[in-house]
Amino acid sequence: MRFKLLRVDLTNLSTKVDELNGGIIRRYVGGRGLGAYLALKEIPKGADPFGPDNKVYILTGPLVGTASVESGRYHVVAKSPLTGILGDANSGGQFGPWLRFSGYDGIVLEGKSEEPVWISIVNGEVKFHDAKKLWGKGVFHTEKIIRDEMGIHDESIGSILSVGPAAENLSRISAVMNDKYRAAGRTGLASVIASKGVKAIWAYGNRKPTEELYDRKGFFDEAKKVIEKIRNHDISKALYQFGTAVLVNIINEHGAFPTKNWQQGTFDDAYEISGEKLADTYLKARKGCWGCVILCSRVSEVEEGPFMTPLSEGPEYETIWANGGSTMISDLAALVKANYLMNDMGFDTISFGATVGTLMELYERALKGELPEDKARELIELAKDVNPTWGNAHALLQLIWMTAYRNRIGDYVAEGAKRLAEYFGYPDAAVHVRGMELPAYDPRGINSMSLSYATSNRGGCHLRAYSVSFDVLGVPKKFDPLGVDEEKVELVKMQQDYFAFIDSVIVCKFNTFSTGPEDYIGLMKTGLGWEDYTVQELLETGERIYNLERLFAVREGYGYQDRLPKRLVEVSLPDGPAKGKTSKEALEKYLPIYYDIRGWSDGKPLPDTLDRLGLEEFKYIIS
Amino acid sequence: MRFKLLRVDLTNLSTKVDELNGGIIRRYVGGRGLGAYLALKEIPKGADPFGPDNKVYILTGPLVGTASVESGRYHVVAKSPLTGILGDANSGGQFGPWLRFSGYDGIVLEGKSEEPVWISIVNGEVKFHDAKKLWGKGVFHTEKIIRDEMGIHDESIGSILSVGPAAENLSRISAVMNDKYRAAGRTGLASVIASKGVKAIWAYGNRKPTEELYDRKGFFDEAKKVIEKIRNHDISKALYQFGTAVLVNIINEHGAFPTKNWQQGTFDDAYEISGEKLADTYLKARKGCWGCVILCSRVSEVEEGPFMTPLSEGPEYETIWANGGSTMISDLAALVKANYLMNDMGFDTISFGATVGTLMELYERALKGELPEDKARELIELAKDVNPTWGNAHALLQLIWMTAYRNRIGDYVAEGAKRLAEYFGYPDAAVHVRGMELPAYDPRGINSMSLSYATSNRGGCHLRAYSVSFDVLGVPKKFDPLGVDEEKVELVKMQQDYFAFIDSVIVCKFNTFSTGPEDYIGLMKTGLGWEDYTVQELLETGERIYNLERLFAVREGYGYQDRLPKRLVEVSLPDGPAKGKTSKEALEKYLPIYYDIRGWSDGKPLPDTLDRLGLEEFKYIIS
Repeated sequence: MRFKLLRVDLTNLSTKVDELNGGIIRRYVGGRGLGAYLALKEIPKGADPFGPDNKVYILTGPLVGTASVESGRYHVVAKSPLTGILGDANSGGQFGPWLRFSGYDGIVLEGKSEEPVWISIVNGEVKFHDAKKLWGKGVFHTEKIIRDEMGIHDESIGSILSVGPAAENLSRISAVMNDKYRAAGRTGLASVIASKGVKAIWAYGNRKPTEELYDRKGFFDEAKKVIEKIRNHDISKALYQFGTAVLVNIINEHGAFPTKNWQQGTFDDAYEISGEKLADTYLKARKGCWGCVILCSRVSEVEEGPFMTPLSEGPEYETIWANGGSTMISDLAALVKANYLMNDMGFDTISFGATVGTLMELYERALKGELPEDKARELIELAKDVNPTWGNAHALLQLIWMTAYRNRIGDYVAEGAKRLAEYFGYPDAAVHVRGMELPAYDPRGINSMSLSYATSNRGGCHLRAYSVSFDVLGVPKKFDPLGVDEEKVELVKMQQDYFAFIDSVIVCKFNTFSTGPEDYIGLMKTGLGWEDYTVQELLETGERIYNLERLFAVREGYGYQDRLPKRLVEVSLPDGPAKGKTSKEALEKYLPIYYDIRGWSDGKPLPDTLDRLGLEEFKYIIS
Repeated sequence: MRFKLLRVDLTNLSTKVDELNGGIIRRYVGGRGLGAYLALKEIPKGADPFGPDNKVYILTGPLVGTASVESGRYHVVAKSPLTGILGDANSGGQFGPWLRFSGYDGIVLEGKSEEPVWISIVNGEVKFHDAKKLWGKGVFHTEKIIRDEMGIHDESIGSILSVGPAAENLSRISAVMNDKYRAAGRTGLASVIASKGVKAIWAYGNRKPTEELYDRKGFFDEAKKVIEKIRNHDISKALYQFGTAVLVNIINEHGAFPTKNWQQGTFDDAYEISGEKLADTYLKARKGCWGCVILCSRVSEVEEGPFMTPLSEGPEYETIWANGGSTMISDLAALVKANYLMNDMGFDTISFGATVGTLMELYERALKGELPEDKARELIELAKDVNPTWGNAHALLQLIWMTAYRNRIGDYVAEGAKRLAEYFGYPDAAVHVRGMELPAYDPRGINSMSLSYATSNRGGCHLRAYSVSFDVLGVPKKFDPLGVDEEKVELVKMQQDYFAFIDSVIVCKFNTFSTGPEDYIGLMKTGLGWEDYTVQELLETGERIYNLERLFAVREGYGYQDRLPKRLVEVSLPDGPAKGKTSKEALEKYLPIYYDIRGWSDGKPLPDTLDRLGLEEFKYIIS
């Protein structure tokens, strides 16, 4: 396979095309892996995330848009303004396939345009359009105007990637949006796109990636087998039935549903914001991304009342948790509305809700006199009109507007939880790893997550290793989530490597509940002609990617240390099944073992490890 | 008196000072009059309101900041983006006096800056500051940042004029804001300021205008007499007790409270949004502008609930009507909140609420199939997430954000009622004169207002002639509001001229309930040394100003015709004391008489009139 990479020079509004050779693809596959490799080579050490030196890689992978299942995804990679190290995020919908259909397998945004532009790509032809009229507009309005201009109103034809006002105003918790409701959410990369003056990308064309496969018939046979596995798995069925929010009750019952900004492990009103409740109330339809058989996406509508929301996609589990559990908002209609508005403004709904939870804690402490006096006064002055108190849904909704446009307290929320809490003099209120807000699983109640979080290369994240799958869901086998078990370390490491491949090839991670690395060997052989491909090579590829990402942090000189926030290691849970637990014991046990099997020392890859993975060219970073 | 005019060239970020001679001041006084004169001389015919050729005059008058009462005002004049003719508006608070204290009597903003700036004026010294960080921010946050920078946090010291996001995004219904809650609201001039790249002006200094008076002791004696008259008048007392919203019940009882976007003359829930109700609920204090003895301003707070609003000024009668009566929103807490947000975003609360009322009517008609099909479809698509239905307070609040930032339907609301209704194919839903939304008095129920509105030079406005004062309040004497009486014409014309002087000198129009032109003669004699000043000269000065304004429209070739919208002349009121009435009869009776006493023909001044008023230099416009 050849990977056609469109390089867009925003400074000069010019383009060129790089064709990457098969060797690079075999080593880095595409998506996340290829992005990490190119970013480490091309983004200079110390680059300002919002400066012209940063680059944004918007990449598909060799399976995207083919007859493989769940292959409707793309990956975004750049230096993150939230973490200061390599950032990346992944999104579904249909933009990934349409990007390939348009003639390119990936785009690199380089430099910086003086005036805002949007870019159309139609059958290989690239055009720059004036985006002054789009600047300041939400994602939905942006898509409408572009579709009006392109004359294509059928939303299944062509696809738009865009950034919202959050990104334009350089929020560190913005999300790259596509197909209205889809987000490459984490690490704030939309703001990097906006900093380059790019508002949107329209992708459309007639190229058929399936026709470029090595052995099309063989590939179809392999794909069918995988599809059946996925379709018939219980977790796939649960995701169809209740969406990702099926997890609300499950995680709450494990005492690992972070509530009141990680001050509790259970939320009394969890059922009120659960997938089951959603299915009984605002759910109007189920939907999937391009080529999906699971259909986990929700289509919801709130028909009346203060939180009236038109038919729209979501909300997801993480969104519900961050904006509900973390803030103690138990009104599901408000969360549907908040999700809608966050999508329109282009926020990472996890980081946004988690930062609001942090704000609520800070505000409470300000009123109680637990912040430095001058900071308390300033916080109250800036936030009193929003009144960010626990459970206040109206505060949440106002904060979406105020944060998108950086008005008053929103100016500080836009910076994310870590900077917010530091500014107001109470850093421990921000529960983050490497500056990124943790998602919806308390590692004090699911102890494998302590290792998953601490070692996640992009900061606090459940998608590098989703060890919830074995500690809670029993995939591939069930563990005691509170039991310290060395075997978990091996599984976390394996997931990290496997998922790095999954994010590069690219398919949906929900495949991994029902499939393993072995299920992709046939697809790679038939699809790409890698006749000698093995599970070992696949996992080694993932490991190579994982090390590349880590090297980026090592080179920056920070962000490679594997730590959890104080609240999780020093403060025990006051409630629920994990009452009295901290993450200290598990993490102290797991981390040395993890370093050992990774071939790392204190978070840094050892020379032998880089040699083994063929990363000699990057050894300068650790020497 | 000499009038020190600071000319600010934004293109070159330079300044110069013009000293206007006493002759010009005696002819045009200051404020509105001087602005009209300078604008007509300096703004070229056909200038783009948002182009560098337009100029913004921010002017005080000779009584501003003196020991005269109610003299805490300033006037803004420029070509209006809402009406396309001369726009002007007037605001209280303390900016006017502080501008004089800073060393200047007025400012002219000329040209256009590439980068946003804010301007500080301290004891005559002018500095330009980078305003990139302020751009996008609301008025309250802008004031906070500037005060932080100037190191003056006592809000009674120094004063800030600023524009909000509404103006930055060139809404045609934006308001020039000062002292957080004060607005030079009408005709959208804030957007002209923003179009020049100016975000704010800080004024501070030690100059004492009182010390520059001709005969200080004599002036104090004269002022005392006027103060006593004002303080002791019943209307002054009612304004203190219930604020301007004391009018809600009064006007509603006259069947002239425009309800449901002028489709009714009474609102069943009027009491719920009245000044009396406000005094019983959210009112926490009363406040006045600089040097005021009336204290009509409300200080309100909503302590809890969805519309929780911190201590802040307002709402006024017009705000309550436009956002309440016009939209049928009867929740006073929602109106307090809406007022707060409109101030922060920098909207003309009259035009904003009136445009929302228009939107609600259009939306209802779209759903009923009464709009052109494609327009109905587009409107529903753009507005369904807001659900702008009668009485929906949550729609109103969302629209403030969406309009400020021009998102979805807000992009159209930002253009004002006339353009909104025209775009969606139902122009009659916009009740306006010269493109400006009418305020809170239905002329079908108060028939003198038909003439006041139709002949108002700045478009639909109650402040050129407030004939409500005689038709309803009995000042100077009571008329039957439904009776067609020729005497009203003379009174409307006299008010227009007198008010033009009041807006130029400048004092608060609320003085005019208790004082007449004769009360200002002594002040002008002692204050400015105009020993031979007479009531006749005062009124002739006002007439001169009124003709100047009209000439601006004549020169532009439109906006001089005196018409009322169809709904008021062709559709009769369906309810209340004025049931069955239209404005047709009264206007047809009044207008010819009015033209006769004005010396106008079909809206245009006749040559003799210009000769009589000493406006020979502008005769080229009518020839």
